[in-house]
Parts: sequence; structure tokens; C-alpha cells
Amino acid sequence: MLSVGIIGYGYWGPNLVRNFSGIDSIQVKYVAEPNPSRHSVIKRNHPSIQIVLTAEEMLKDESLDAIVIATPVSTHFPLAKQALTLGKHVLLEKPMASSVAECEELIQIAEDKGLTLMVDHTFLYTGAVQKIKQIIDSGEIGELQYFDSTRINLGIFQNDVNVLWDLAPHDISILSYLKNEMPISVNATGISHLKNGIENIAFLTINYASNFIAHFNCSWSSPVKIRQTLISGDKKMILYNDIEPSEKVKVFDTGVGIKSDADRNKLLIDYRYGDILIPKLSTHEALQQVATDFIESIESKKAPLSSADIGLHVVRVLEAAEKSINQKGKEIYI
Amino acid sequence: MLSVGIIGYGYWGPNLVRNFSGIDSIQVKYVAEPNPSRHSVIKRNHPSIQIVLTAEEMLKDESLDAIVIATPVSTHFPLAKQALTLGKHVLLEKPMASSVAECEELIQIAEDKGLTLMVDHTFLYTGAVQKIKQIIDSGEIGELQYFDSTRINLGIFQNDVNVLWDLAPHDISILSYLKNEMPISVNATGISHLKNGIENIAFLTINYASNFIAHFNCSWSSPVKIRQTLISGDKKMILYNDIEPSEKVKVFDTGVGIKSDADRNKLLIDYRYGDILIPKLSTHEALQQVATDFIESIESKKAPLSSADIGLHVVRVLEAAEKSINQKGKEIYI
Amino acid sequence: MLSVGIIGYGYWGPNLVRNFSGIDSIQVKYVAEPNPSRHSVIKRNHPSIQIVLTAEEMLKDESLDAIVIATPVSTHFPLAKQALTLGKHVLLEKPMASSVAECEELIQIAEDKGLTLMVDHTFLYTGAVQKIKQIIDSGEIGELQYFDSTRINLGIFQNDVNVLWDLAPHDISILSYLKNEMPISVNATGISHLKNGIENIAFLTINYASNFIAHFNCSWSSPVKIRQTLISGDKKMILYNDIEPSEKVKVFDTGVGIKSDADRNKLLIDYRYGDILIPKLSTHEALQQVATDFIESIESKKAPLSSADIGLHVVRVLEAAEKSINQKGKEIYI
Amino acid sequence: MLSVGIIGYGYWGPNLVRNFSGIDSIQVKYVAEPNPSRHSVIKRNHPSIQIVLTAEEMLKDESLDAIVIATPVSTHFPLAKQALTLGKHVLLEKPMASSVAECEELIQIAEDKGLTLMVDHTFLYTGAVQKIKQIIDSGEIGELQYFDSTRINLGIFQNDVNVLWDLAPHDISILSYLKNEMPISVNATGISHLKNGIENIAFLTINYASNFIAHFNCSWSSPVKIRQTLISGDKKMILYNDIEPSEKVKVFDTGVGIKSDADRNKLLIDYRYGDILIPKLSTHEALQQVATDFIESIESKKAPLSSADIGLHVVRVLEAAEKSINQKGKEIYI
Repeated sequence: MLSVGIIGYGYWGPNLVRNFSGIDSIQVKYVAEPNPSRHSVIKRNHPSIQIVLTAEEMLKDESLDAIVIATPVSTHFPLAKQALTLGKHVLLEKPMASSVAECEELIQIAEDKGLTLMVDHTFLYTGAVQKIKQIIDSGEIGELQYFDSTRINLGIFQNDVNVLWDLAPHDISILSYLKNEMPISVNATGISHLKNGIENIAFLTINYASNFIAHFNCSWSSPVKIRQTLISGDKKMILYNDIEPSEKVKVFDTGVGIKSDADRNKLLIDYRYGDILIPKLSTHEALQQVATDFIESIESKKAPLSSADIGLHVVRVLEAAEKSINQKGKEIYI
Repeated sequence: MLSVGIIGYGYWGPNLVRNFSGIDSIQVKYVAEPNPSRHSVIKRNHPSIQIVLTAEEMLKDESLDAIVIATPVSTHFPLAKQALTLGKHVLLEKPMASSVAECEELIQIAEDKGLTLMVDHTFLYTGAVQKIKQIIDSGEIGELQYFDSTRINLGIFQNDVNVLWDLAPHDISILSYLKNEMPISVNATGISHLKNGIENIAFLTINYASNFIAHFNCSWSSPVKIRQTLISGDKKMILYNDIEPSEKVKVFDTGVGIKSDADRNKLLIDYRYGDILIPKLSTHEALQQVATDFIESIESKKAPLSSADIGLHVVRVLEAAEKSINQKGKEIYI
Repeated sequence: MLSVGIIGYGYWGPNLVRNFSGIDSIQVKYVAEPNPSRHSVIKRNHPSIQIVLTAEEMLKDESLDAIVIATPVSTHFPLAKQALTLGKHVLLEKPMASSVAECEELIQIAEDKGLTLMVDHTFLYTGAVQKIKQIIDSGEIGELQYFDSTRINLGIFQNDVNVLWDLAPHDISILSYLKNEMPISVNATGISHLKNGIENIAFLTINYASNFIAHFNCSWSSPVKIRQTLISGDKKMILYNDIEPSEKVKVFDTGVGIKSDADRNKLLIDYRYGDILIPKLSTHEALQQVATDFIESIESKKAPLSSADIGLHVVRVLEAAEKSINQKGKEIYI
Repeated sequence: MLSVGIIGYGYWGPNLVRNFSGIDSIQVKYVAEPNPSRHSVIKRNHPSIQIVLTAEEMLKDESLDAIVIATPVSTHFPLAKQALTLGKHVLLEKPMASSVAECEELIQIAEDKGLTLMVDHTFLYTGAVQKIKQIIDSGEIGELQYFDSTRINLGIFQNDVNVLWDLAPHDISILSYLKNEMPISVNATGISHLKNGIENIAFLTINYASNFIAHFNCSWSSPVKIRQTLISGDKKMILYNDIEPSEKVKVFDTGVGIKSDADRNKLLIDYRYGDILIPKLSTHEALQQVATDFIESIESKKAPLSSADIGLHVVRVLEAAEKSINQKGKEIYI
């Protein structure tokens, strides 16, 4: 029976522990949490799990097969490197690490040792994103034209990473999953209203070789919570509104056909605006599928859907975006 | 009795004719419209107005006091220059002209001749923007932090100007009216899915010397119509949703107070989230007030609210934005 | 060329005059309006139409073919009777008349004289209701189960009829059009907060021989405007939200299948909840089609879609509903 | 230390157990659940609670102070009677019991024995209802005019009680809490699309001696989930939309003032439509406060907010409503 240890019982940790505990075929053996005041909660909810103060205490258990890392971003690399080196499979919270170099080193170690390395981009497993992927792959919406995402709310300011590192991984990972094309470059702008100079608002454009563009609007300082993405093809367009309880995905049979009209020396636009379809979505808990995918990837030595490659892609974009902000919006090549 | 001529009876012209006709103290003497098939409509709706084919025909009437120009942007400058030179007051549709140089020349002529030169930024006269202006000026929302506007729909593609020149004047003029600070620079990115290479989607950031940022998302290719602006102060925040029939302006008693906490060497954030107020707005027709402001500005030699200065400000930003798009998002100083 | 006279230029009259004037094959000869202060508006908008103070003045013109009556309900019967007796076709605003007896007498006269008698239930001609009719008739939603309508707002209180006579004709006519079954009885309750004792809020249930029920919630005293109807079949359900600008009709692939399970002696419910479809609707102006249908019905001696029978059906329900309110909700047979 | 036993671990039971377990000053000693397959879940979540199969097993424990009954309605009376007779305080799920007679007998026993008898009308403890109560009691909205509630969804059909007994207790208890006036009578209509003849849709009007009316629209067969109540005073009106995540309560500064105008022999209505306020609501968990109120009522011998009197009021209305449905909407006196 595969045994798993989870590091970090802060904001997301409890969800991870609950979902891994729900898999009958494995054992959640450890939770590491440095804050002793959290231990009683763990004990109450999960009486059979061993609680330790440090990651080291669980990593030294040679029988432990896999670890899940739900700690601040800056600790991802050292913890994952240590675990992989000790031969353990690793699931990392998003973003994967603090730099492209770190991600690449982790991927190399995992590959050398034949270990599963996965990043928890939970949104990829939602019914909404799965349905959108299926629609795009079917060719129904035609050639992709743009991806325009807004993820803003009155948020919990992070004090180690800016709003892009905090919020954009969700949308960049979705984009990376939906569209299999490496970006060429990014432009980003932003502002900090905080004393520590960390951006609480940022705008990111990703440029591609094909005639496609992606844009991200991220903010911790919006009075309203918006989580909305437009994904447009040349045949149909998709509105993905994650706040909507029952109408998250809308497919618009809407397109604009263009015919040049030499005579009148101008463009004629032929608008179509047709039915809207709101497809039924699967309502499973996404994180349950993350946990299952991690375990199955270990067991069958397959690549997980939310792969380290997607994790690296996300960090590549974030690293470039941060450079662009620091260079006043200059285009940064990836 | 002041006499007015209106050039162009296309999309917006009929609204201008109707609203100027509603002012009892003036006479709408001419409408110029080159397309003869439109003349019967003008005649039916306004039997007493003289219809001419060209602007020249009305401009040669020395008794004509003022003209309103509702023609394509590229014709704004020559028509307005000719009219001002002939001593006529001028109201221009937005955007004011095709370049900063053109705007500045028009302003100079008007000043030299003591004529009223005004730009029809209709939104400034809406109940919503008037209320927002009043709230900001009262100090209630504190120091302005950001302005974030989204104006997207499945739009009528223009074939002479890109989506920024078409849609952004609304929001840039509102911003210019609400915040009395000249921008330092802009960054803009965009894409064209049209054969003529004109951008149908564009994203614009405006940078300021103060700790304020403005962002604009404009698109002719969205399946949903969104006209939404967030205007945030350090005390309260405003959501301006122009699509909402009865709740266009929401004032959120929401703020984030920051206190540094040296001991723990990190930032503590004190969130406040309080009542929301939806103020009653005046429901007058904005364009009626544009027409009235133009006439009153002529009569009393005052500067209109939607002044040529705001018109110039808008074109200044647009000109820089277009440069930035052409230079791959590079920061362009204003 | 068919000639038409319109009686009443109050709230709805201008729309009727405009739409009948838009039909090239007929002539709008007269508008009768007792309030002289309205005459200048008519003259300005429709310089070629003859304006008279009383209906009598136009009815005495023997060459006049048809009249449209847009006056208070209490005057519908005498005006229509006089016009029909004089051999003129009649289009009546809703509700058709003040009582079933009046409606039946008008229908009899029209039949005897071979004249077109039509009631302006405008909603029947909207893209939304036309689409719903088509969906129901296709059998797609299965056997109809219920019709539940809410039509409330902060309304213009009428001082001659209660809120049911004012607002319910819209929904009762829609129901009558969609479902071809005579009701058995009604129950209604209501309240008046006005000094004149006229109900400003009322609730109406219509009972049928089949296993179908209809309910109507009408109010002039709601702070929010709601115009929403649920129409359910045993296979699919329709939400018709007339306030929605672009998503007025939603078809839910939702049903509840029931299988009795004797063993466990209770009902098992098999829920299905599937896709939602928002069909594209025709965006014509409904009143234009009302006018056209009236003219075509005269010309081709066919029954109009919004027939006198539907008008009578509506008044039958309203008359019974008023009795039920007066008898404290007692079931009143129709 | 007060000890509590909870009967029933079905739909609502787990929430009760969790919330009572969260009160440090008491001990949740037993959970009774007849279905053995549920026991492992209870054990996992609450390892220290004793699990029994029947209520009898916990009731025979003389040291047990209080019980909470979360079982089907038909079992409420016998279980509560037994518990009260044995001297235990009782919290009953809504509705309190199956008849007025049952409720009255329970109240009598509790009174005779000096025991706390409370009904879990959870909604009374929500931030929304607490805020509405406060607004009404302040006199701000003036004299109450109507209460109009819609609670519809695609629901879990009950097989022992109809939709009114299932859904209306929420809204009737809220009304009873907000307005301290006994109704005079009710009218109700409904329909069953189920083989067992239990109404899945029902409409209820409650009549009062004062010029106030209440209406309830309840359905298990709606494709959309609506939980919306209008509460109107003669000065202001409240919209309570329980589905809204952040704008549950809206207060409209809206009213209609009426002045009779003898001269024109009709009513003049003076509409006011002003600001809308969305007050900040407390976001506590309502059920936690139910549990706390029950314990405090026992300890301090005070009447709980969600008293047995409100529970009785609700059943009184439901019993009359069922009679009215069976007598085709006839007014039934209470």
C-alpha cells in the first residue's frame, strides 16, 4: 500500500489531507506542520495520521513513498529536491517553484530517478475546464483567436510573491492545457499600493507566433470577485465564468466572417449570432481527481494531466512577466 | 437666434439632430449628408430642416453660427479647421481628430478666433459619471488608486481606426474628467484577426507619476457585451456597470489598511468590507445635455465640460497607444 | 388602399401610429385625441395625418376601413361596437373589454358583419413567445405541467382597473396561445394599499381538467422589476425572462422521472439535469407584426393570431378572478 | 457539564452534530442512527461520540440532559413527547410536528416540566434575517404592507409531506419572526405531478386583520433555484435574495405616496425612487447560533429566539394550508 506524507496544514493543506484520505488504496501516514497550535485540529479530523513538526521527520522514513508539498513558494524547491533525491514521488502546490531554473532542476532529478513529479493545478480537473478542453479539441469552436482572463477580488495579500504569482497560475495553466503552443514573449504592467512594493494589481499579455493573444487581469484590490475567461475561436466563443453556480460555461455560436469587397474598397463584416449552449458539467470535486491522478501516475508510471511540464510553462511565463513589469512593460522573450 | 448645421446623418447624426432640434432657443438650419438615400428619412423626421449634400453648401452660409461634425474621424480635422476659419463654433464627435498635432492646431485656431470648440464625449454627461465625479470630488473614496475598464462586445468593425480609437475614447475621457493628472506614459498590446491588419482587440495601460494606474480592455470580438469600470480609492471603491439598467453605480465601503509590523517582519493587512450603496442617478438623456452645454458655452463664452482639452488628452493617449502597439508594448512617453 | 384611424394618443397610441405608418400599403388617415395639448406632437411626428378631437369625427367618414382603439378599458366596448356597426374592422388594445358579455357581443357583431375583430396582445408576436410556441408544439418539452408567471414592478397605478386587469392580460394571453385548453376555474387573492380600494397586488391560480396548473403573481408595488415565467413540461422546462436583454428564453433539459418501487414502499425519483439551450430569437418589433397581422387578416379574411377568442379567454379569466378576490379566494368556475 | 444526544444522522444531522460538538461547554454524548452503514462516518468524524441504533438507547440514560431530533416529521411528536416526559430538553427540526394538536401538547408538557422546547428554524439566525429584523424594528421601512416569498428549485421530493410542509416553514417562520401579528386565514392551491398525490407545487396566501398580505410560492419542480422574498413597508422595501453570495439584502428607498385629488376625480401617485443600500451582514454560521441559543436557553431558562411558539405558528399555517388545498383554495380560518 502506497504511503503519502503531506507537508503544510495551512490554507490548502486540510483539503489535500481530506482528499488523499478519501483514497482507500493508499495510506496518509504523516502530516508535517510547524505550528503546534494546528496539531489538535489535525488530530481531531484525522486521528490515525501521524503528526510531525518538520518535513525532515517524515522524509527520514524510508518506507514513505510520496509527499505532497503545500508550503510557501520559496520552500518548494528545497523540499521537493530533498524528497526526490530520497526517492520519493512529489506533488507540489502551484506555482511549482520560484524560477525556471529550479523547475528544470526538479524535472531533471525526477526523470533521472524515474519518479512522478506533478504540480497541483487544480482547475485543470474541474468539470468546466474538462468540458472546455473537450469542446476545443472537437474543433467545434474553430481556430483559437484569444484567451482573456480576469481574476480579481478583495484578496489576501501575499507578502512573498506578487499578485501574478498568486493568481495567474490558475489561468496560465488552463491556457497551457487548452492550447498546445509555446508563447514567444510577454508584456506585463502592474502597480503596488503596498509598503513592501509587491504588486497587488497586474496586467499580462502573452504573445504567440500564431495569430493568437492571451491577456490576464489579476488583482487583490477589487471590490467585486470576478473569475471570468473568454476563449474565442473563429467559429464559436466560450465564456467561462467560474463564479456562476450553474452556468459556468457558455458556448456562443457567434462568429465574424470577413469578406474583402474590393469594389467598395472596404471590409464587409458578416455577423452571425446564434444559439447559446450551456453544457452540463461534471460536478466531481476537482481536488479528489488531482489526488487520484497523482496516485495513478505513480502506480502506472504515466505522466499526470497536470504535469511538471505545465508547471514549468507557468513559471516560465511568470518569470518573464516579472521581468517585464520591472522593465516597464517591455516585451520579454521566453 | 443661434443657427446650427449638422454634418453627417449616419449612426450618431440622427441623435444629434433630434437633440439639437429639442432646444427651443436655437434653429437647426442644415443637415449635410452625402448619401441621397438618407434624405427622405431626414425630411420625414425633420421637415423644416434644409438638407444639403456637402458640408461646403452649409459652410458658405455666413449667417450659420455653429456646426456639429459627425463624420468619420479622418475628416474631423479638415472640416473643423474650415469651419473655425470661417468663424463658426464647432462640436466634434469623438475622437476629436486623428493626431495630437491636428487637435492642437484646432485648439489654437479656436482660441485665436474666440470660438467654442468642443468634443462630444457623451458619457461625461450621464447621470452615472456625474454621480461618480461628485463622489470622488467629495473625498469620500479617498486617494485614487486605479481605474480598470472593460468595454467589449461583438462590435461593428471600423475599417479606418482600430478598436482603441473606436471604444477607448469613452473611458479615457471619463478618466480624464475624473482625475486631473496628466499621464506619463502608456503601454499597449493588441491583435488583429482582420485582413486589413486593424486591431480588433487591444489592452492599454496608462502610467502616472502618482501611485495610480489605469487599464483598458477593448474588443470588438467578445460574445458578451461588458461595459464595466472599477474606480478605486484607498477608502472606498466604485463599480460602474453601464449595462445594468437600475444599478449602474455601486459604492463599496471596502478598503485595505496596511500597517507594517516590524516585529514579525511582515505586513499585516486589516481588511474592511462594509455596506454597499447604489445611489439614485439622474436619468436625463446625456446627449441633450451635450447639446445644451455646447449652446450655452457659445452664448456665455465659457469652457464646456467636455472641453477640447479633454478631447486632446484622449487623442494624446490614443496616439501613444498606437505607437506602443506597433513597438510591441514598449512604454511610450506622452 | 386600406385606410386606418387610431383612437387615443396617450401611452401606447404613439407606438401604434408609428407602426401602422410604417406599412406602405395602407394609409393612416386619422388620429383622434381629446387632449388638444397632444396635437402638436402628433403633427410634428406625422404631418400628413388628420387630427381630430373625438372618435365620432373619424367614424363618420364612410371611406375609413379600420380603426384601432387605444383608450381606457371602459370605453373599449362602446367604441368598438359603434365602429363594427358602421362596418369598420377593429383592433382593440388589451384587455378586450370590461366583461365577458361585452366581448361576446362584439364577437357576434363582427361575425355577423364579416369584419375582422382583433385584440392587441403584443407579446404573442415577440421572438421569445414565438420561439416558445414552436418548442412546445414540437413536443420537445413533453406534456405541459405548469405555467408560473411573475410580473411585478413599481408601476403606474391605474385608477379604473386593478393590477390583474392591467398586467395579467399579457401572461394569460401567452398561456392561452401556448396551451389550447379551457380552464375550469380560478382562485385569486389580493390586497389594496390604495384609498380607492383597487388591488395593487394580486395572486391568481387557474385550474384545469388536465393535470396542469397556472399561477400569476402581479404587483404594482415591487421595488424590483420582474417579468419571468416558468413553463414546464414533463421532459424539459423553459424559463422565459423578459427582462434579460440577450437570454430571454432558456430551455432546460431537466426532468424528473418517477418509478414506483413497491418493495421499499416509497417513490424513487430519477433526476435528470442536462444542458441548457438559449435559442437565438428573432428581434423584429412585435408591434409591427401586430399591425401587419391586422391588415393581412382584413385583406385575406383570415383569423389573426391574436384573435378575439384569445381576447375573450383573457377577459373570462379576469372576470372570474375578480369574483374570486371579492369572495376571499373562493374557486370560481369559468 | 450539559450532555446532549442527537437523533438522526441523515441530511441535516451531521450539521447538528458538528455544531453542537463545537460548543466547548457541553458534551455530545450520543448519536442515534438506525442505519448501521452510516455509523462508520459518524465514528470517523466524531470518534468520541457514542453511537446507538435507536433513540430509546440514549433516552434511558438518565444523566442525558437534552436531545436534538432530526428525523422525519411524523416521528417528531412521539420522540419529543417521550423525551420531555423523561425530563429532557428538546430541540426539534422544522416543522415542529404534524399537527397543531401535537405542537400544543408538546408545549404543554414542556411548560409543566419547566423544560426548554425549541424548533430549529435556522434561517432566523442568519445575518440576513437578523439584519432585516433590525431594519423593520427600527421603523425605517414604515408600516409593513406585504411579504412575498418564492422558494423553488429542482428539489428532492419528500414522500411523506408535500412541498409546503417541506419548504414553506423557512419563510413562514421568518414572517412570524418579523411581524408580530396572528393571521386570520389562509388560501392555498397546488398540484401533484407525482403518483402518490403529494403536491410538488403549491401557492399560499395568508390574510391578516391589518392591511397586510403574505404570499408563498413553493416548488420542487423548477429548473432554476430561486429563494427570494420581498418585504415591503410604506416607506421602504426590502429584497432578500438568499442565493446572492454578497448582496443578500437590498433596501430600496422606494415608496408610493398617494394623494387624492378631488378635482380630477382620480388618484395622483407620487413616486419616489431613491438610493439602494446593501447592508453588510454578519457571516457567522446560523446553525452554530441555533445550537448556542438552545444551550443558553436551557442554562438561563429563557425562551429561545426560535421558540416553540414560532414552531406552533408555522404548523398552524401549514395545517390550514393543507385544508385549503383539499377544499380547492377555500379560505380557511386559523
